[in-house]
Amino acid sequence: VRAVVLEGDRAVAVRQVPDAALPGPDGAVVVVERTAICGSDLHLYHEGTAFAGVRLGHEVVGTVAETGPEVRTLRPGDRVLVSGIVACGHCPACLAGDPVVCLEGQMAALGTSHALPGGQAEALGVPAADRFALAVPEDVTTEQAVLLTDILPTGYLGALGAAIRPGEDVAVIGLGPVGLMALQCAQLFGPARIFAVDVVEDRLRRAASFGAEPVDATGGQGVTAVLEATGGRGVASVIEAVGLDATIVDALSCAAPGGTVSVIGVNLSMDLPFPMALAFLRRLTLRAQVASIPGTWATLLPLLRAGRIRTDGVFTHQLPLSAADEAYRLFDARSDGVLKVLLDPTR
Amino acid sequence: VRAVVLEGDRAVAVRQVPDAALPGPDGAVVVVERTAICGSDLHLYHEGTAFAGVRLGHEVVGTVAETGPEVRTLRPGDRVLVSGIVACGHCPACLAGDPVVCLEGQMAALGTSHALPGGQAEALGVPAADRFALAVPEDVTTEQAVLLTDILPTGYLGALGAAIRPGEDVAVIGLGPVGLMALQCAQLFGPARIFAVDVVEDRLRRAASFGAEPVDATGGQGVTAVLEATGGRGVASVIEAVGLDATIVDALSCAAPGGTVSVIGVNLSMDLPFPMALAFLRRLTLRAQVASIPGTWATLLPLLRAGRIRTDGVFTHQLPLSAADEAYRLFDARSDGVLKVLLDPTR
Amino acid sequence: VRAVVLEGDRAVAVRQVPDAALPGPDGAVVVVERTAICGSDLHLYHEGTAFAGVRLGHEVVGTVAETGPEVRTLRPGDRVLVSGIVACGHCPACLAGDPVVCLEGQMAALGTSHALPGGQAEALGVPAADRFALAVPEDVTTEQAVLLTDILPTGYLGALGAAIRPGEDVAVIGLGPVGLMALQCAQLFGPARIFAVDVVEDRLRRAASFGAEPVDATGGQGVTAVLEATGGRGVASVIEAVGLDATIVDALSCAAPGGTVSVIGVNLSMDLPFPMALAFLRRLTLRAQVASIPGTWATLLPLLRAGRIRTDGVFTHQLPLSAADEAYRLFDARSDGVLKVLLDPTR
Amino acid sequence: VRAVVLEGDRAVAVRQVPDAALPGPDGAVVVVERTAICGSDLHLYHEGTAFAGVRLGHEVVGTVAETGPEVRTLRPGDRVLVSGIVACGHCPACLAGDPVVCLEGQMAALGTSHALPGGQAEALGVPAADRFALAVPEDVTTEQAVLLTDILPTGYLGALGAAIRPGEDVAVIGLGPVGLMALQCAQLFGPARIFAVDVVEDRLRRAASFGAEPVDATGGQGVTAVLEATGGRGVASVIEAVGLDATIVDALSCAAPGGTVSVIGVNLSMDLPFPMALAFLRRLTLRAQVASIPGTWATLLPLLRAGRIRTDGVFTHQLPLSAADEAYRLFDARSDGVLKVLLDPTR
Repeated sequence: VRAVVLEGDRAVAVRQVPDAALPGPDGAVVVVERTAICGSDLHLYHEGTAFAGVRLGHEVVGTVAETGPEVRTLRPGDRVLVSGIVACGHCPACLAGDPVVCLEGQMAALGTSHALPGGQAEALGVPAADRFALAVPEDVTTEQAVLLTDILPTGYLGALGAAIRPGEDVAVIGLGPVGLMALQCAQLFGPARIFAVDVVEDRLRRAASFGAEPVDATGGQGVTAVLEATGGRGVASVIEAVGLDATIVDALSCAAPGGTVSVIGVNLSMDLPFPMALAFLRRLTLRAQVASIPGTWATLLPLLRAGRIRTDGVFTHQLPLSAADEAYRLFDARSDGVLKVLLDPTR
Repeated sequence: VRAVVLEGDRAVAVRQVPDAALPGPDGAVVVVERTAICGSDLHLYHEGTAFAGVRLGHEVVGTVAETGPEVRTLRPGDRVLVSGIVACGHCPACLAGDPVVCLEGQMAALGTSHALPGGQAEALGVPAADRFALAVPEDVTTEQAVLLTDILPTGYLGALGAAIRPGEDVAVIGLGPVGLMALQCAQLFGPARIFAVDVVEDRLRRAASFGAEPVDATGGQGVTAVLEATGGRGVASVIEAVGLDATIVDALSCAAPGGTVSVIGVNLSMDLPFPMALAFLRRLTLRAQVASIPGTWATLLPLLRAGRIRTDGVFTHQLPLSAADEAYRLFDARSDGVLKVLLDPTR
Repeated sequence: VRAVVLEGDRAVAVRQVPDAALPGPDGAVVVVERTAICGSDLHLYHEGTAFAGVRLGHEVVGTVAETGPEVRTLRPGDRVLVSGIVACGHCPACLAGDPVVCLEGQMAALGTSHALPGGQAEALGVPAADRFALAVPEDVTTEQAVLLTDILPTGYLGALGAAIRPGEDVAVIGLGPVGLMALQCAQLFGPARIFAVDVVEDRLRRAASFGAEPVDATGGQGVTAVLEATGGRGVASVIEAVGLDATIVDALSCAAPGGTVSVIGVNLSMDLPFPMALAFLRRLTLRAQVASIPGTWATLLPLLRAGRIRTDGVFTHQLPLSAADEAYRLFDARSDGVLKVLLDPTR
Repeated sequence: VRAVVLEGDRAVAVRQVPDAALPGPDGAVVVVERTAICGSDLHLYHEGTAFAGVRLGHEVVGTVAETGPEVRTLRPGDRVLVSGIVACGHCPACLAGDPVVCLEGQMAALGTSHALPGGQAEALGVPAADRFALAVPEDVTTEQAVLLTDILPTGYLGALGAAIRPGEDVAVIGLGPVGLMALQCAQLFGPARIFAVDVVEDRLRRAASFGAEPVDATGGQGVTAVLEATGGRGVASVIEAVGLDATIVDALSCAAPGGTVSVIGVNLSMDLPFPMALAFLRRLTLRAQVASIPGTWATLLPLLRAGRIRTDGVFTHQLPLSAADEAYRLFDARSDGVLKVLLDPTR
């Protein structure tokens, strides 16, 4: 099969690779219908030499081609979405849909190492498929299904982790695809006002159309603007969806006393300069997480089907898998029009 | 009246100062019966030149001498304990016993600035006395009442903030007076095991007598030992009661995936080197706080009276106020026998 | 002043009564601008002989005419709304905005006994005015302010008590004014579907316009219809806003296993026939409550101001106070057009 | 194999029955080492004619003899404890250890119908054994393991459902085996005082030895005594472990405003006379449940192993299976010395 392979810094190619195999008796092989590029893929893309040979991609919707003998809930021919995060699949945490705290310590993202080939490919092996793949109801679109593989669960858990209470104010820092999902999920908790903080005009406009108040952070004015809009006090909940050291510190700086900062932007620093004085004197809570995808599906599917979460306009571009190189360059450039890019492996 | 005044680095003296005045129509004057030295006083003590002239102390039990016309719940002659933290006293947060998130932004500790004279003195003015002083029931001892002014509430909120659930494991880092209170309060949430991490043998022994498993952190082995004792996974909840950068990072390092780290050790760094990669990949929650004292009294008083929290052996030394200089030196030395020191202003 | 006085079964009259007096040094006198008739007033109205002489009304917006010497937050001339529920005003529960659990046991509704004259009058004495009256921000309309005195807080607490989680389904039984408020407040908790159950076509239509799915309960078909719409399982949360024995049993019958039933309809039975078998085998939670009004204002005011709760179309009729008799008859008839009735004491 | 079979009202016999068979490819056959009689067995025992032929028993510890091909976590020879409650075993609720809310609606207790033979027998078929049987760690005694099959989880969930907060007061009504477990589990939540309400002196004495204050309810004085001991206010949390209509009403009557009543006593009435007026005016929460056993094991096992829950003295009698008739009579008589009875099928 063909797959997107990392070849160097900012260099990917579509290569012929060995066919996807069953990852075990509890696994399945999925023929990919659509797959998307995620902001976290860019971390690998930027350091491609260090990860050369890795087959990328963790946002996959497709059709089951084969199932191992232990699989109970799926059959060949089923249209499924695949969790971008997998783990052992059999410990109590995995059974409860929470692979991030897998008791076997096996949490991993698809497409981030040689051990676990990614899904920007014509086919993909899915381990513990009863836990990490889900049959897609007919009334759910392919685009919606792709969003359920990572960024909508991530946005939801980011909002949940921010401990939003009805009538309180929220700030979402970073209105890329994940931030936009987080913004909508924040609405599920009944806040009074949501401030959408970004530097890209296009994103601020989109956030406003989803009911947020846009805050232009150009020139580092984001924190000041949020504080001004809240009488100097800050907001009770902040969702950080960028992952830079500076934006995480910004998030803490615009939290009100007693507030919660929920980080879903990828940040793998071991020495981020943390304002403990702020946290201590204002009783702040910081929560960071990679998302435990499967546990959110029972919540998000009914919301999508009831029309309570909008997904229109998220995918701004679709390219054939063969044009992956162009797709990555386009997505990486973050030029105004691009929000999220779909790849079509059938072309 | 006589009061303990900061005179320089590691230098305090007992000076004659102007009589305590009513801080306003809602305030009271309290004649001090006993007052204690707190670990946080040592922060000021060590930098005494910068804070020269500050009248120290925020742990006070005494008798009401005078009340302002708006005070409703206290009368002259009442034996009271005083919250070490005060604020406006009239906003919804203060009315609910939570001055740390005072909506007027007036949270402050007694005895930490020129504006708010401390309670290591013969008398003290207490602002918003209905909110920040509490009549002590007869069956509560003076020692217990002193503990309720700061360190027992701090320990309780530290345990509460650690999100301890029944059957889970807990680590308490630092078994000084605050850590010892936190250890006991952690027991209120039904953990299976509590690891008490310190380097002082005496403290470890005391922690063991309170039902914890002592972990000797000498040579930086604390984290390793906690991980080993938990099969490499770490504990669900950590209470940090030291306040050093290193011990806060230790606390994060011995938290299990999904865990919570609750910091009550004073740390006022603006750039603590924070292991965000750990927090992100393991879904950790960090909560830090100075304690909102008055809101805990309704919880802690019944527990003290029912004998569910032990306070014996906490105060290892008592000296007359006149010997404050010696008391600070003794407490600062942390030589083995000293845990906490009472001052008696009547002598 | 003139006031609405209960004279017999289904008989009220507007009588001259003694001027409103300060209920104490912490009280205030409010000149009433608008007051509304509440569904709970009808309970008294129907048994008017037993309560003859009671001055009715607990939904009041007006202007402060006089304040006692202990009142801090209000001044003569302030436009205020008054909590329909009052209590001692000084215990920790009252200070925290929760008079229903007043530690002095003094919770009472205005206008329900001789001891506490009601607000369907030209003026009203408000006890503990700092706690039970609130200055109304300029951008809040009089109609919105009247809703904040009782039925919007009641609806909010009903929704809160129903433990609604994102993505779950909800049923609201009874779409009168309180149910309509509950329906909107349920939306604050992110449910997927809300079923609005009533027998009045007009109310079902209005509920649908607020995003609910109407369920016609005519002929006792409500429970069956909710079960059918949920594949036989029922809904996770039910808000009961009628108060009849039968509708409370209906609420329990359409709750899914693990579900919560929140009763805000007034029911004062001491022997309601309760289906404990259902509750026991399905792990149901039942919560009932009269609303602790003041504690909700900090949540609801920002939501009203942000336009997240709609109040248009709730008040369908306004009459002068002098026409109270007609207003009660109209409201009691629940003929299709009537939802809620305002009284204007200035006319 | 031999099994205890219901033959009539208050009549059981040990009969030869067909060997236990695998209940399916996910099931296991367990050779029973010890089994106990539960208070809920007495409900069937008292109405034995209606349930004639049912094979009783749902508290089983034994050794795996055979496993179906889909079983992953158990092997023949494993010593296991079996959940008294089972369900489909494969829906998200069952996977998360919560069979009471099984999405297939298949929740059932072992040994309560012809369809699901019980475990007071030499061998037992366990459906979905990965979910409903657990390998017992070596340091857990057989008696402890038997308690984990039903009554300790029931007591724990009863305490959890009572929403006990540190420093609050609790009442436990009924100090039989389940109540005694609930009492100990209540201690996990840090209450100040626990009132143990019963009429049997022996049970009150035992409760006192577990840290409760005994309240003799003889002559219906239980509610009065609890109210007196709490200054007339009642307790914040009540655990009802009897199941009579009268004791459930008692439980509601001694709950303080804002309190929670958690019912774990079996009551299958469809028209229990419920004091809704109390619930409404005092904002009470009622929660009832049959226990979702498996979800509690991860909590309770570490607590047992850490010695935080005492199980000594619970089993007062042990008889051979062949003496089941005598054992039932003894247990049913509740004469003072009997608390809980073990049956030994190896004799």
